[in-house]
Amino acid sequence: MSNSGRLTLVGAGPGDPELITIKGAKAIASAEVILYDALVNKELLKYAVTSSQKIYVGKRSGKHSSTQDEINQLIVDHALQGKHVVRLKGGDPFIFARGKEELDYAESFGISTDVVIGISSVNLPGYYGIPLTTRGVNESFWVVTATTRNGELSKDAVLAAQSSATVVFFMGLKKLKEIVALYSAFNKEHLPVAIISQGSLPTGSVVEGTLETIVEKSHDIPAPALIVVGESVGEYLNNHQPVHAQARS
Amino acid sequence: MSNSGRLTLVGAGPGDPELITIKGAKAIASAEVILYDALVNKELLKYAVTSSQKIYVGKRSGKHSSTQDEINQLIVDHALQGKHVVRLKGGDPFIFARGKEELDYAESFGISTDVVIGISSVNLPGYYGIPLTTRGVNESFWVVTATTRNGELSKDAVLAAQSSATVVFFMGLKKLKEIVALYSAFNKEHLPVAIISQGSLPTGSVVEGTLETIVEKSHDIPAPALIVVGESVGEYLNNHQPVHAQARS
Repeated sequence: MSNSGRLTLVGAGPGDPELITIKGAKAIASAEVILYDALVNKELLKYAVTSSQKIYVGKRSGKHSSTQDEINQLIVDHALQGKHVVRLKGGDPFIFARGKEELDYAESFGISTDVVIGISSVNLPGYYGIPLTTRGVNESFWVVTATTRNGELSKDAVLAAQSSATVVFFMGLKKLKEIVALYSAFNKEHLPVAIISQGSLPTGSVVEGTLETIVEKSHDIPAPALIVVGESVGEYLNNHQPVHAQARS
Repeated sequence: MSNSGRLTLVGAGPGDPELITIKGAKAIASAEVILYDALVNKELLKYAVTSSQKIYVGKRSGKHSSTQDEINQLIVDHALQGKHVVRLKGGDPFIFARGKEELDYAESFGISTDVVIGISSVNLPGYYGIPLTTRGVNESFWVVTATTRNGELSKDAVLAAQSSATVVFFMGLKKLKEIVALYSAFNKEHLPVAIISQGSLPTGSVVEGTLETIVEKSHDIPAPALIVVGESVGEYLNNHQPVHAQARS
């Protein structure tokens, strides 16, 4: 039965356990081995059958590359034993998540693969009523990882700051002052900004302001956080109704 | 009971009915009135109770603004009658979908609102194994609506073509030759490109090539379609395993 093993990459969504897809929940239910990481809500494991093996593979900062190798190896080892392996990843497996690397590695061993896409953190502004695009205001949004492999602010951020796009920075909290300085260099310090911390979780919060005020307002914001900059964010600030404070269905 | 009426904006996901969230399916199940549009998979209405009213509000091209007013009015009329109105929108309600306008309009009548975000078409490349970001290749992706209100190619596209981002064009099929010309002006006609048509549906397909070859290859592609341009798309083409052709869980 060793050739019946397979891998399904599943996006767990942004945090709220009800924001996984129906297809994702079904994949968990059919898994024999589940590899899940730090950003996955543990409540999702309730969909798994009792007999399945649940393995935490949360990465520690500074140890990314070696641990990625270990995850790849765990996937292959279990799949080659004929098991259905679900690799459960926070957000969407193909957006800043290295899902493609895991897929390619498994496929290089002849293992069948499948993907269940998920809601990315990119969608979190909408959770709080902040549109990424507003008709007549902007026509695009740009999603940038603020911190690159070498620890520097991404060069793409320099281009993004010159555009009219709503810019969503991943992993930007430690780069906030650099981001503000960048926009200021283009005389854009008036732009509205929102920082979404632990979005869609009960501990989630939104801090809002402009690039001129945001550093002062954003002390002690817990990670993970998204930084969202642009005129479209102002559509939220101008018509502020705290969607996130209401009872949810 | 007239003050118990409320609005829930729900993202139906990109097409595959199992790519709605659990929270979204629950919202449909609790709706008394459902307003759904052309891009919503009709299978999702199976989650609704029999007694609920299901109203098709698909827009016709060229009649956008007047019909949006009609939708807004339908939402308000039913909610003010004390009903739970679910506005079911293709993709994510806050990404190129005017969800914020509907939310604001309802709130201006004192109606309680809620949002259930959904998987956007932006995530569809991952459905076919195409990463929007690849570690060491690119650090950002940019999502642009190709066709603006006045029918012209978005000015943001001119900036996007100069960046290293993976660029995802919405509504770009009729603008494909202009998009190719734009990248060619920056000597980028070698870039890999994929066109995803009717993504995540049984009729879905992917056409791949470079900007030099794509126009010739893309005759008669049915809408809706995403155009995805950038080096990260090449990670798919270089390691081509047709994820979409496999049996899905």
